[in-house]
Amino acid sequence: MDKPVRISLDVMGGDEGAPMVIPGAEIILQRRPDIAFELYGDEAVVAPLLERHPKVKAVSTLHHCDVSVRMDDLPSQALRKGRWKSSMWRAIEAIKADTADVAVSAGNTGALMAMSKFCLRSMADIERPAIAAIWPTLRGESIVLDVGATIGADSSQLVDFTILGGAMARAVFGVEKPTVGLLNIGVEEVKGLEEVRTAGRLLREADLPFMDYTGFVEGNDIGIGTVDVVVTEGFSGNIALKTAEGTARQLAGYLRSSMSRSWMAKIGYMFAKGAFDRLRVRMDPRKVNGGVFLGLNGIVIKSHGGTDAEGFASAVELGYDMVKNGLLEKISADVAHYYRDGTAGSAEAALEAKAS
Amino acid sequence: MDKPVRISLDVMGGDEGAPMVIPGAEIILQRRPDIAFELYGDEAVVAPLLERHPKVKAVSTLHHCDVSVRMDDLPSQALRKGRWKSSMWRAIEAIKADTADVAVSAGNTGALMAMSKFCLRSMADIERPAIAAIWPTLRGESIVLDVGATIGADSSQLVDFTILGGAMARAVFGVEKPTVGLLNIGVEEVKGLEEVRTAGRLLREADLPFMDYTGFVEGNDIGIGTVDVVVTEGFSGNIALKTAEGTARQLAGYLRSSMSRSWMAKIGYMFAKGAFDRLRVRMDPRKVNGGVFLGLNGIVIKSHGGTDAEGFASAVELGYDMVKNGLLEKISADVAHYYRDGTAGSAEAALEAKAS
Repeated sequence: MDKPVRISLDVMGGDEGAPMVIPGAEIILQRRPDIAFELYGDEAVVAPLLERHPKVKAVSTLHHCDVSVRMDDLPSQALRKGRWKSSMWRAIEAIKADTADVAVSAGNTGALMAMSKFCLRSMADIERPAIAAIWPTLRGESIVLDVGATIGADSSQLVDFTILGGAMARAVFGVEKPTVGLLNIGVEEVKGLEEVRTAGRLLREADLPFMDYTGFVEGNDIGIGTVDVVVTEGFSGNIALKTAEGTARQLAGYLRSSMSRSWMAKIGYMFAKGAFDRLRVRMDPRKVNGGVFLGLNGIVIKSHGGTDAEGFASAVELGYDMVKNGLLEKISADVAHYYRDGTAGSAEAALEAKAS
Repeated sequence: MDKPVRISLDVMGGDEGAPMVIPGAEIILQRRPDIAFELYGDEAVVAPLLERHPKVKAVSTLHHCDVSVRMDDLPSQALRKGRWKSSMWRAIEAIKADTADVAVSAGNTGALMAMSKFCLRSMADIERPAIAAIWPTLRGESIVLDVGATIGADSSQLVDFTILGGAMARAVFGVEKPTVGLLNIGVEEVKGLEEVRTAGRLLREADLPFMDYTGFVEGNDIGIGTVDVVVTEGFSGNIALKTAEGTARQLAGYLRSSMSRSWMAKIGYMFAKGAFDRLRVRMDPRKVNGGVFLGLNGIVIKSHGGTDAEGFASAVELGYDMVKNGLLEKISADVAHYYRDGTAGSAEAALEAKAS
């Protein structure tokens, strides 16, 4: 038998913390039994929970931590008070110490990113990290990155993100050569920001064998699922993500108020309840819960702070799948190919872009 | 009686052109009878249509134009072949010649913006124009700008957009002191792009009497309708707009496929049909059809290229309302207040930001 996937959990992270995380761990164990957990948290809180979840306890090592990062700590505060000792820090550090293959936290994003960068450092050749989101689309799911780690990424960083996202698509979706597009406004080559245009040129020239770069895509292509991977810098990516969330909530609100306004509509709703339930499942943010930090020496997954145990289990499952499918190895190989073994023009162009 | 609002129409613009524009003009005349049209287009096409729409003919002057800008013309091509003589150019020029108060075209956005800038020029103190969109929200409607005119606006331009959008909210929504937010990622003052942070500081310091600057908003605030006016630069604004469109289409697709999957759901749909029709009306993009070009010496409205007569009428109505409510005068007064009569620190800070 293969050795289990080693997953470290920041048990204190999230709005609910341990009472959500431990049941989440139990849920994922039913789906993926070959997991070993490294748990970081307050023993007084976690140990009693483990007594009630013996299956989790059986595959876990609990490490007591005095400090927990709070959901409203600023990244700098979190680093100051939580470095070396908080449950968040130590869950990340387990990757560096090679006692875990992937870390999952529902703690606050800024603190988690700051600690991840500080502890794990950027991969060779990758300047800045990205946060990748899995986005439900009409065709299934796509990966969108960066959704908030690197504000104002330059062309070289956009190319890095493309490589990172492409590798993730292969690991998570199991496609051999994912389609990749750069987010832009207008599809003509002349439009948009200089950085995006330059990144597009670099990707065309590089003609990478492990992805199919299809050119520019627009905001409406994300929901349609035009490409497997949508690449953009962190400001516009975050705005796209939040805008889509807001629009989904808005339309759900319209739907609710439309359906509750007349008795005809209410009867209709009763008949159509099964359909509405299916709709709710497809729109369920818990199913695609988890932003993935890419570009560091290790994979850290940010679960939504307000998630429940089911959503947390989804985030852990994502981490499991990425480890099983060798995401980090894929990324390293792709980065090396682009920056070092790349064919003629591409490598030169890449290094030139990096230097400029 | 007041004199009529003079509206110039690029009759040849849009996917359908004159057969859509002239019926659109008839629709709006039923709602707003005090309009006089200046029509620009191919006489051979437009004159027969006017015979079938005598009410439009009665209030219109038709100006023959040999040239029409095509939907796929690049802005530079359009300027080269259509300047001085195309229906699009001449509809815009009517504002400059003071034979029209506002111009409306369903022609291509890039060409319309290029010609509008070239013909009308920027207003005093406003460096770059913005495109404002009216965005349906859970609370009603908001204005979002810029959605694509000025890529990478700096802090001073973001302040300009804030003033422009605030004046538009007063003219269109009739609120005395609209709430205004800067689009950013995260609501803490420390986050986001330098330009956005600086613009926020300038707006706080200026404390403008004709708006209520509330700070940063995030992507999900747009659909909720947290503020009357959301300000951002053109790249992220365009991506937000297109992403929301894509999400709406995606959810409509989910809904359709959910409702068509079982006979129970189909019966439910029949009962709830009235509710679904209301939902469709609220999501109808034709009702909020029209991007408004702000910051130029005149108001130009871009109607959606694929719109029908009903949608075109909405765009014309928006123009009518803005003229009636003195949008340009409001903008001029607000800009003058900020850049010239502003109190103490604000004017200095503004000029300093402009100079840097």
